[in-house]
Amino acid sequence: MEPVNLFEYEALAQAKMAPAFWDFYQGGSDDEVTLRANRAAFERIRLRPRVLVDVSASALDTRTTVLGTPVSMPVLVAPTALHCLAHPEGECATRSLEEIAQAAGGPLWFQLYVYPNPQVAEWLVQRAEAAGYRAIVLTVDLPPLGNREKDKRNNVTIPPPPFYEANFVGVEKMGQRWVRLTWESLSWLRSITSLPILLKGILTAEDALLAVEHGIAGIIVSNHGGRQLDTAIASIEALPEIVEAVAGRCEVYVDGGIRRGTDILKALALGARAVLIGRPALWGLAVDGAQGVFQVLEILRKELELAMVLSGRPTLASIDRTLVKM
Amino acid sequence: MEPVNLFEYEALAQAKMAPAFWDFYQGGSDDEVTLRANRAAFERIRLRPRVLVDVSASALDTRTTVLGTPVSMPVLVAPTALHCLAHPEGECATRSLEEIAQAAGGPLWFQLYVYPNPQVAEWLVQRAEAAGYRAIVLTVDLPPLGNREKDKRNNVTIPPPPFYEANFVGVEKMGQRWVRLTWESLSWLRSITSLPILLKGILTAEDALLAVEHGIAGIIVSNHGGRQLDTAIASIEALPEIVEAVAGRCEVYVDGGIRRGTDILKALALGARAVLIGRPALWGLAVDGAQGVFQVLEILRKELELAMVLSGRPTLASIDRTLVKM
Amino acid sequence: MEPVNLFEYEALAQAKMAPAFWDFYQGGSDDEVTLRANRAAFERIRLRPRVLVDVSASALDTRTTVLGTPVSMPVLVAPTALHCLAHPEGECATRSLEEIAQAAGGPLWFQLYVYPNPQVAEWLVQRAEAAGYRAIVLTVDLPPLGNREKDKRNNVTIPPPPFYEANFVGVEKMGQRWVRLTWESLSWLRSITSLPILLKGILTAEDALLAVEHGIAGIIVSNHGGRQLDTAIASIEALPEIVEAVAGRCEVYVDGGIRRGTDILKALALGARAVLIGRPALWGLAVDGAQGVFQVLEILRKELELAMVLSGRPTLASIDRTLVKM
Amino acid sequence: MEPVNLFEYEALAQAKMAPAFWDFYQGGSDDEVTLRANRAAFERIRLRPRVLVDVSASALDTRTTVLGTPVSMPVLVAPTALHCLAHPEGECATRSLEEIAQAAGGPLWFQLYVYPNPQVAEWLVQRAEAAGYRAIVLTVDLPPLGNREKDKRNNVTIPPPPFYEANFVGVEKMGQRWVRLTWESLSWLRSITSLPILLKGILTAEDALLAVEHGIAGIIVSNHGGRQLDTAIASIEALPEIVEAVAGRCEVYVDGGIRRGTDILKALALGARAVLIGRPALWGLAVDGAQGVFQVLEILRKELELAMVLSGRPTLASIDRTLVKM
Repeated sequence: MEPVNLFEYEALAQAKMAPAFWDFYQGGSDDEVTLRANRAAFERIRLRPRVLVDVSASALDTRTTVLGTPVSMPVLVAPTALHCLAHPEGECATRSLEEIAQAAGGPLWFQLYVYPNPQVAEWLVQRAEAAGYRAIVLTVDLPPLGNREKDKRNNVTIPPPPFYEANFVGVEKMGQRWVRLTWESLSWLRSITSLPILLKGILTAEDALLAVEHGIAGIIVSNHGGRQLDTAIASIEALPEIVEAVAGRCEVYVDGGIRRGTDILKALALGARAVLIGRPALWGLAVDGAQGVFQVLEILRKELELAMVLSGRPTLASIDRTLVKM
Repeated sequence: MEPVNLFEYEALAQAKMAPAFWDFYQGGSDDEVTLRANRAAFERIRLRPRVLVDVSASALDTRTTVLGTPVSMPVLVAPTALHCLAHPEGECATRSLEEIAQAAGGPLWFQLYVYPNPQVAEWLVQRAEAAGYRAIVLTVDLPPLGNREKDKRNNVTIPPPPFYEANFVGVEKMGQRWVRLTWESLSWLRSITSLPILLKGILTAEDALLAVEHGIAGIIVSNHGGRQLDTAIASIEALPEIVEAVAGRCEVYVDGGIRRGTDILKALALGARAVLIGRPALWGLAVDGAQGVFQVLEILRKELELAMVLSGRPTLASIDRTLVKM
Repeated sequence: MEPVNLFEYEALAQAKMAPAFWDFYQGGSDDEVTLRANRAAFERIRLRPRVLVDVSASALDTRTTVLGTPVSMPVLVAPTALHCLAHPEGECATRSLEEIAQAAGGPLWFQLYVYPNPQVAEWLVQRAEAAGYRAIVLTVDLPPLGNREKDKRNNVTIPPPPFYEANFVGVEKMGQRWVRLTWESLSWLRSITSLPILLKGILTAEDALLAVEHGIAGIIVSNHGGRQLDTAIASIEALPEIVEAVAGRCEVYVDGGIRRGTDILKALALGARAVLIGRPALWGLAVDGAQGVFQVLEILRKELELAMVLSGRPTLASIDRTLVKM
Repeated sequence: MEPVNLFEYEALAQAKMAPAFWDFYQGGSDDEVTLRANRAAFERIRLRPRVLVDVSASALDTRTTVLGTPVSMPVLVAPTALHCLAHPEGECATRSLEEIAQAAGGPLWFQLYVYPNPQVAEWLVQRAEAAGYRAIVLTVDLPPLGNREKDKRNNVTIPPPPFYEANFVGVEKMGQRWVRLTWESLSWLRSITSLPILLKGILTAEDALLAVEHGIAGIIVSNHGGRQLDTAIASIEALPEIVEAVAGRCEVYVDGGIRRGTDILKALALGARAVLIGRPALWGLAVDGAQGVFQVLEILRKELELAMVLSGRPTLASIDRTLVKM
């Protein structure tokens, strides 16, 4: 029988995957307090539905834009590593960013990790521009990796550089170490690309304000799915202070714990322009390859539409702060 | 042994019913967060009983009126579907609204779902008026149905139109789709009947105010027993803001999670004129037909009377906000 | 091995008693929400101990007075029914109030239930005065009895009148019905005795104020051990508003959920003059007769003394509101 | 496999130790409410990490001073009794304070229990000064011992005086009773030593202020690991009011429930200069002697460093109140 929700995809994916790889996907850092908090925070937020509103099919509209790019619904797929562990169709070592751009059905953002030699980043960014990527996503909550104890016990490590070689043909080996940027180095990044830049991993109003001051186009409120600093605040709990601080000067996204259409609704009500899903896309991939990812997104689309109808909010513009009770 | 409370009726009903039909009755939407919240919210509210008050049998009085109709206690039976799944005595396909009116021992309200052809609604409403129904209840939190996953897994659907034919003899087939009204279409509904209109499914002060402005006689605060929008606010939690907004300009009722006499007391203390029970009536029906429904109501009556006596509130008028601590 | 705390007495008592009688002692009404809340409320209150205070044996003093009668510690035994179910040494049908007064090692208060014929109450009160009882305790949270479903299922009822005959030799049979008094009838009670009167079962500031106005000497904040109105507020939670309302104009006691010396400390910190224990005394009785009751009290005394020492409060006078964090 | 965190050391230690001694280490008093609260309070506090900060190895610095003594990280080992129960390498009866001072790799504070004869304390303090101890820690939350029921059931008692004889060669037997000091006797203690004095066991702002007034150099906020007054406030919950009251006039430390690098971060964010660990050091000792203690500290060091990096706080000075959300 077809899975009816994302949790069923989760169970099916687990049955298909090697336990150690499953742990790699599912696990959080330390005691997984943040991993659980991401989900629990959504369940605590209650909805205040409105009635007798026109929510007919013709009124219903989930379309929006993200950094100016039209999308059919406010759900994006977050960058996640090692898709090939889940399914042969997952992008992996043998896929260069150009191959991915060609294969992708929708618009892409390029997630950048910065290597010690700045010219490597420049070269990657230029290739991303050339390949049609619409934005650069700089993940700012690593390095280093969080303390993922399941991986230590399973002896699972993020594979060594040959794994990523498709993107690095022709450059000398550079080891695995990424570099953590600082606010100062952001101006360098801005100087090497005309693409808009998003910062992924912001959890405070203070950093959101700095992002605005540094000309950042978008913020992805994220605790890296509970995989970096454990006991960090749940991302949906951090969202309101960031939205308030930013006050519309850049776009705000959120990831972490999105499993239901009502979760998307809550994120939007609290000021997110769209949400990103991480693990659920991998579950879909593990269960049924590209088609599984598509199905996961379709379930979310249907759930979001139903939630919009049942809450009397047929358009994204009608979703506001009064929809939720914290 | 005779069941001593509603939870025992629940257990007995489950033993008697086919699991898939049981799931249909008991289930909520999505993760059943609201279903559980309805009940949990009542358990969190604490009572502040008064003592040394005259609560003798002669002082005790549970009578009230609902839209002017006298009732022996502030407990109504909510509209619920497909009674015949529970017991042959349940009203179902073979019962027209006129047959029900004749058989009923007490006053009736007519719950209206509106079909695409407005003349069908007019015809139903006129027949309800003629049959002596006292009010029209417009359920405003559907269509569409909420995402009830148990029913999907069990392959249970609300039966197709022949099921409802008793009410539609002589009209052409019209399919199953109901229409969701809007505030604008309410004036049409008011124009086709002189009966008072209640809206069932209001959960916000904003909509309660609109209801008052549209001349609505009564509001039923309800999340459809947790079966429509999951993570919607518990109905008893939504009640206070609605009572405050309405400020006496229409009657306010509540359903969702009522299982004990003390629950009724709490709803009344928070401003409800009466409560409605849904599933418990079906449990009684499943266990012992009409007599079971009667017994369920009798248990609630006894529990309510005892709760009024033990809390020192012998009359409904003496039940006020100071009785509860939220 | 000797039990080290009251919970061990509880376990031992259960092993000794017939399950139906055990249920009668232990049970609460309805869903036992208040029964659990009484205990949970104590666990939530945190203590703020002081250090470097003189808590030497010579400084330590648990003595106080209750309505002017000196007692060795602020712990009283609450009135509970049917001691003979627990142990042959329990007072029961064959014990008149005079026999109990003679046998008792300590001062007694007389708990009065009022019968329809007021002369019976007058006669009982006069006998209590003559027998040396120090006060009249009027239990105001019944009749009627709460809905104790375990007793219904076990078919256990409070025994019929012959059971109480020892107190009623020479009077005609009068059935079991007690009368619930009102504030008005309190003046009658005051007119027939010069003993101080306590009201047991007050849970609100409003009633506490009325008690003061009616010349009541003491209030016992109580929900009858969770056996009357279910979901009534935990007694320790009701205590602060009552102490504040009374403002020293009468003595305030509390029962419900006292199991540890630190519970006594918390009750005193919140303004109680003393606490009453109900079930724990019955556990001691069931385990070892009068000696068991004594042991239970001794455990509480030792725990209270240790708690006073460890919290830096060697005297009852030094126990104040700053000791607790709610 | 090497344990990856302190909880794994805990499990390994339990497997190695006799159950009764394990209970002695692990147990709390009464119902162990405070024992659990110490840990739960840390899990409730959420972190607000900052990003794009220079957290390179050269920027990272965990060094601080405690009472002027440089230490490599803000983690101290708390005084705990009977190390020899865990491992032959544990200090015990045969170790005098001078032997310990010689063996120790790091700076030491001397924990003083005061005996009835004040000359014994003077003699011990003078020896501690001579042996190079840097401070006197006066534990102020005992005597007496808390009510540790596991020890009662296991018949485990803190061993009688011969056990401690190594420190008392040449003095007459004095029994086991320690003396609880008072604020008045602190001036005596200050008169017999020039070493700074710390008070261990403060849980209130009131006592913290008194400590400052009495010239105390440092406060260790502690509930003795949940082993003294049960239901006492969690130490990390008591910390903020104490830090605020002290306002920098003495150093403030905290122990109780520290198990993760993020716990250390939270304590520092709330104003502690350093934390103390108790049971974890004993777990390390039980598992692998001195090397195990070292490993436990190394795990904490690595976790603290990672937490500092991931929270964007490379130095202790950068850890402030904005890092936590209570």
